[in-house]
Amino acid sequence: MRIIILGGDGYLGWPTAMRFAARGHEVVVADNYLRRHIAMETSSEALMPNPNLQERARLFETLSGRRIQVEIGDCADYRFMERLFTEYRPEAVVHYAEQPSAPYSMMGYEQARRTLENNLNATFNLIWAVKDHARDCHIVKLGTMGEYGTPNIDIEEGWIDIEHKGRKDTFLFPRQAGSLYHTTKVLDTDLLWFYVRTYGLRVTDLMQGPVYGLSTEEADLDERLMPNFHYDDIFGTLVNRFLVQAVAGIPLTVYGKGGQVRGYLNLKDTMQCVELALDSPVPAGKLRVLNQFTETFSVNELAARVQEAGREARLHVEIAHLDNPRKEAEEHYYNPAHSGLLELGLKPHYMTTAVLEGMMGQVVRHRDRIDPAKIPPRVRWKEAPAPDALVQVPAV
Amino acid sequence: MRIIILGGDGYLGWPTAMRFAARGHEVVVADNYLRRHIAMETSSEALMPNPNLQERARLFETLSGRRIQVEIGDCADYRFMERLFTEYRPEAVVHYAEQPSAPYSMMGYEQARRTLENNLNATFNLIWAVKDHARDCHIVKLGTMGEYGTPNIDIEEGWIDIEHKGRKDTFLFPRQAGSLYHTTKVLDTDLLWFYVRTYGLRVTDLMQGPVYGLSTEEADLDERLMPNFHYDDIFGTLVNRFLVQAVAGIPLTVYGKGGQVRGYLNLKDTMQCVELALDSPVPAGKLRVLNQFTETFSVNELAARVQEAGREARLHVEIAHLDNPRKEAEEHYYNPAHSGLLELGLKPHYMTTAVLEGMMGQVVRHRDRIDPAKIPPRVRWKEAPAPDALVQVPAV
Repeated sequence: MRIIILGGDGYLGWPTAMRFAARGHEVVVADNYLRRHIAMETSSEALMPNPNLQERARLFETLSGRRIQVEIGDCADYRFMERLFTEYRPEAVVHYAEQPSAPYSMMGYEQARRTLENNLNATFNLIWAVKDHARDCHIVKLGTMGEYGTPNIDIEEGWIDIEHKGRKDTFLFPRQAGSLYHTTKVLDTDLLWFYVRTYGLRVTDLMQGPVYGLSTEEADLDERLMPNFHYDDIFGTLVNRFLVQAVAGIPLTVYGKGGQVRGYLNLKDTMQCVELALDSPVPAGKLRVLNQFTETFSVNELAARVQEAGREARLHVEIAHLDNPRKEAEEHYYNPAHSGLLELGLKPHYMTTAVLEGMMGQVVRHRDRIDPAKIPPRVRWKEAPAPDALVQVPAV
Repeated sequence: MRIIILGGDGYLGWPTAMRFAARGHEVVVADNYLRRHIAMETSSEALMPNPNLQERARLFETLSGRRIQVEIGDCADYRFMERLFTEYRPEAVVHYAEQPSAPYSMMGYEQARRTLENNLNATFNLIWAVKDHARDCHIVKLGTMGEYGTPNIDIEEGWIDIEHKGRKDTFLFPRQAGSLYHTTKVLDTDLLWFYVRTYGLRVTDLMQGPVYGLSTEEADLDERLMPNFHYDDIFGTLVNRFLVQAVAGIPLTVYGKGGQVRGYLNLKDTMQCVELALDSPVPAGKLRVLNQFTETFSVNELAARVQEAGREARLHVEIAHLDNPRKEAEEHYYNPAHSGLLELGLKPHYMTTAVLEGMMGQVVRHRDRIDPAKIPPRVRWKEAPAPDALVQVPAV
């Protein structure tokens, strides 16, 4: 299959590219290095160095004999997007080309505008390129579980049947996100659904929870092929931050009460999910939504798991509660459905102590590169900021 | 009160500006003339000439003694928006600054992108200007009933209580619009609601149906103060098109079966509604949604009413059914709530035969300017276009 991966330099984009190339598909990756650029601007570089896309593609070809075509350009520029489609005529496209940091999107006007424009225009251009140049192309779009927020009812997979005053209809499940970044994905969904039903496009929206892990079959070939590992306050995930804090001897910083529950999944399962989505195409005019995670944890549970993994690794791990810089419910109902991908054949890799220990081992090998100054939250979006909130992180 | 009206050159913006100025408020109107520009580009100029904003403001001041401050600039440019807010420190802002044509938004990539960027960036910049420079300013935003589409359940005023598997929560009423223009207003709503709940902004979203009429207390002072009257396929409303067709002796063109029901209101009632909204401010952190229309008609009912008004005016009016260029339900359930504005004190002006005859009289005075070539739909967004659909309009 001819597949274009938009955002192919990213944490998910790069391992996805290797996976599909390894399976014998013709793979093109496109990226504008926006994340790397923002990481430099905000001093939020990844823990391990990641060679650029051309270098990684060359290395991967040497090791695997499989070619990945690299195109550096901006998906928010329609000339670039149109050229990709007319030159490569893809049968499928995986769309990861979005600015993914919630805190960055909440820093200020410039960062918010950049997030809105990059994310919405990339999606909009993709829609038009498919509509005008590859109408049957299957769009696999990375949404986020964060679009749903934390409603007080069960979260269904994208759609909900509503019975109201004796009549019924089916609607997109209500979306109400916690940051501008997550809100741009809500806007993406609205745009995609409009064009899908108007022009008969084919879309799978993968509503993914936070992903952890550095290991995939292909990434394991060479450390330089590893996806990026961010532990900073801008791009770092909770799991990565906790692992780095554990290794660096810094107490794990739980924001607020720590009752925030999310659905997590292993990077290996993201690879499976995207593959399963591509292997089961979608009829024209359908927006298929799949909730993509394998298990749910609260922040407190996650901290306890990292503490446990630390114990196995003979690290003494403490936990500290920090004034929450985010506006979010710290205790809430959370029961999201996630049967669609299991029905397609997903075999989950759960977050065992061994998995966390394995990641911790990789962090330990790069512990000299840990910069504790990158960890405390610099961006707040809860009103009435406590003036000393940012200094509650214990010094190393 | 200090009030900024964004999109002050428009069909609603200009009469709103005069209304508030006449009531003694300090009024600033901002506009970038985008609609006039698109009208020229697409040969869709209004029936009667409308002097530019500076001229109209001067004339209005001469006639009424009331001053309207004019600022020509682009609301999608944050420097312009920020200057408006820091210079005038408004207590309220009425936001009409959107590209309002559904067919234009469906013409092609350039038109769609322009619509998306203008509308979303104007709203986004407004949000930030209020958030950073006038946190207590009441935003009155023109939404559209079109955001809801035509669901098979009763449409509530913006919000719906959902009971699902034994649990309950309240959500934005599902939105599913019929054109990209209408979809940009869905995106506006998502953005506004995110920033309202995050930063405690105050917003009233007026979900308006199609407006008709040329008469307001102030517009009646002089014909040059009349709002614009479009009958073309780009900016023309159904009512205006029917009136012009009746006067020009062209059969009224009903798209498809004509069972499309919408909620209509008189321009005088839009004036009332905006005034009622401003007179009852909204608490911080609340997005108040009001459905703004006074009565519902199907396209067929509207055609029959225009035919009836034509009979009174001794015009022989025929009705023709045209292949529908739009993707929309032509027969559907439609029962939208609209009690909020009535509770605030709205006294409706209904669409009587006399009202239609009055408008017809104004069209008659400008009948020599009617260009029948402007009427047939040039833009289709229903799949499988019938090749001869565009030539079914009988010649004059």
